[in-house]
Amino acid sequence: MEKLTIIKVGGKIVEEEDSLNKLLVDFSRIKGHKLLVHGGGRSATRLGEKLGVESQMVNGRRITDAETLKIVAMVYGGLINKNIVARLQELDINALGLTGADMNIIVSEKRPVSEIDYGYVGDVKSVNSNTLSTLIMQGVVPVLAPLTHDRKGHLLNTNADTIAGEVAKTLAAKFDVTLVFCFEKKGVLRDENDDESIIPSLNKGDFERLVREGVIQGGMIPKLENSFEAINSGVKEVVITRASEIGHELSGTHIFPN
Amino acid sequence: MEKLTIIKVGGKIVEEEDSLNKLLVDFSRIKGHKLLVHGGGRSATRLGEKLGVESQMVNGRRITDAETLKIVAMVYGGLINKNIVARLQELDINALGLTGADMNIIVSEKRPVSEIDYGYVGDVKSVNSNTLSTLIMQGVVPVLAPLTHDRKGHLLNTNADTIAGEVAKTLAAKFDVTLVFCFEKKGVLRDENDDESIIPSLNKGDFERLVREGVIQGGMIPKLENSFEAINSGVKEVVITRASEIGHELSGTHIFPN
Repeated sequence: MEKLTIIKVGGKIVEEEDSLNKLLVDFSRIKGHKLLVHGGGRSATRLGEKLGVESQMVNGRRITDAETLKIVAMVYGGLINKNIVARLQELDINALGLTGADMNIIVSEKRPVSEIDYGYVGDVKSVNSNTLSTLIMQGVVPVLAPLTHDRKGHLLNTNADTIAGEVAKTLAAKFDVTLVFCFEKKGVLRDENDDESIIPSLNKGDFERLVREGVIQGGMIPKLENSFEAINSGVKEVVITRASEIGHELSGTHIFPN
Repeated sequence: MEKLTIIKVGGKIVEEEDSLNKLLVDFSRIKGHKLLVHGGGRSATRLGEKLGVESQMVNGRRITDAETLKIVAMVYGGLINKNIVARLQELDINALGLTGADMNIIVSEKRPVSEIDYGYVGDVKSVNSNTLSTLIMQGVVPVLAPLTHDRKGHLLNTNADTIAGEVAKTLAAKFDVTLVFCFEKKGVLRDENDDESIIPSLNKGDFERLVREGVIQGGMIPKLENSFEAINSGVKEVVITRASEIGHELSGTHIFPN
């Protein structure tokens, strides 16, 4: 099988011109097939503030009412996605910006209301791996915005880590997939105050122990749960690292099953 | 050659939910290959007002400074484009939203500064007809936002009528193209106060005479110039009509060469 590298980047990295440009140069140097998934929450929050639409977050997830959906469609689907595409084209990467609605690549379901009504937030139901793999085999580099659709005419806001994990799992049947979650640190840290205390490899047993011990906490927990799900579903390699490692030797925290 | 219908819609039609839904149902019923080009200027102006970015128009063209470019990237590339795509997917149309940067389909050149500096406005240099026709032959329905790129990493704001005309001309080598410019009237009117005074057919000679006589004026002139350029470059049929005619018998003003 051919190799496919899936990179998930979010946070400040994609929202500041200098770090974005550096990231895209590194990304463009990855050999073989590649796919980029981006976030953009800070920019959405900022646009919301300017428009007087308050961002409400619960457990790190954005409550997405109708006005917020318009904001994320503009910021994720337009501003960030299309700028990344234009910059990658300059670097001779044949990028194609996509939401889940485009070519019906990711169908989701509006999250049911239980205690919390997340609004227009979608949980991924299916990834159209034939369409994505056909594009990739034609030399196209998909750039995925964190938006999906319900096939009933609505866009839905969907977590970018989840999209990266689900796409990696589905494409693992067709490619040797390496999935890289980038964030601001060099990897999962044993001591959050020591940026060099990277845990080089992590299996499910270690993970559960470190969560019990309080070493791993907060937003890292769902990210790692996504990672274990991916590695247990046929994804060949999952790495959590800093964006600046892309295109290099990929140090960071490597995820192993069990 | 197979038939391809290219529809350009702009104005209020794409920016009000009811008229957009009706338009997309009519569009979905068009037989054979199809492609949609949309505008969205009113929404861009409205978002600009909310954000304190003033819209400056010269000869019906938007002066696009860096802040305005962000606004049009959000509104055209994100909000309007992706909502159209999601709605078409509901109607079982395999829509794919594109700017000119995506898959490098439309390269433009920043308009040179002469008397007026239009800013980040692009004049179309080339349309990648192979990529577009491959997608169309695969059953994909491209939905084009009025944004192009310069291959130097920048998106550029480009008039939607121009994009429709240039795409039609390029694809005329591969398809029997019908190009339909939709606006609020049933066609080109002999008397602007009489909505029924449609000129059923128009050749270049008639056009020039009617411009001299002052019957045709304003924004209709560049629209008709685009139309004559298209019909003289191999596009099989060019019609100027009302959006509600789409999917029906296409009455309106039919354009003929000479």
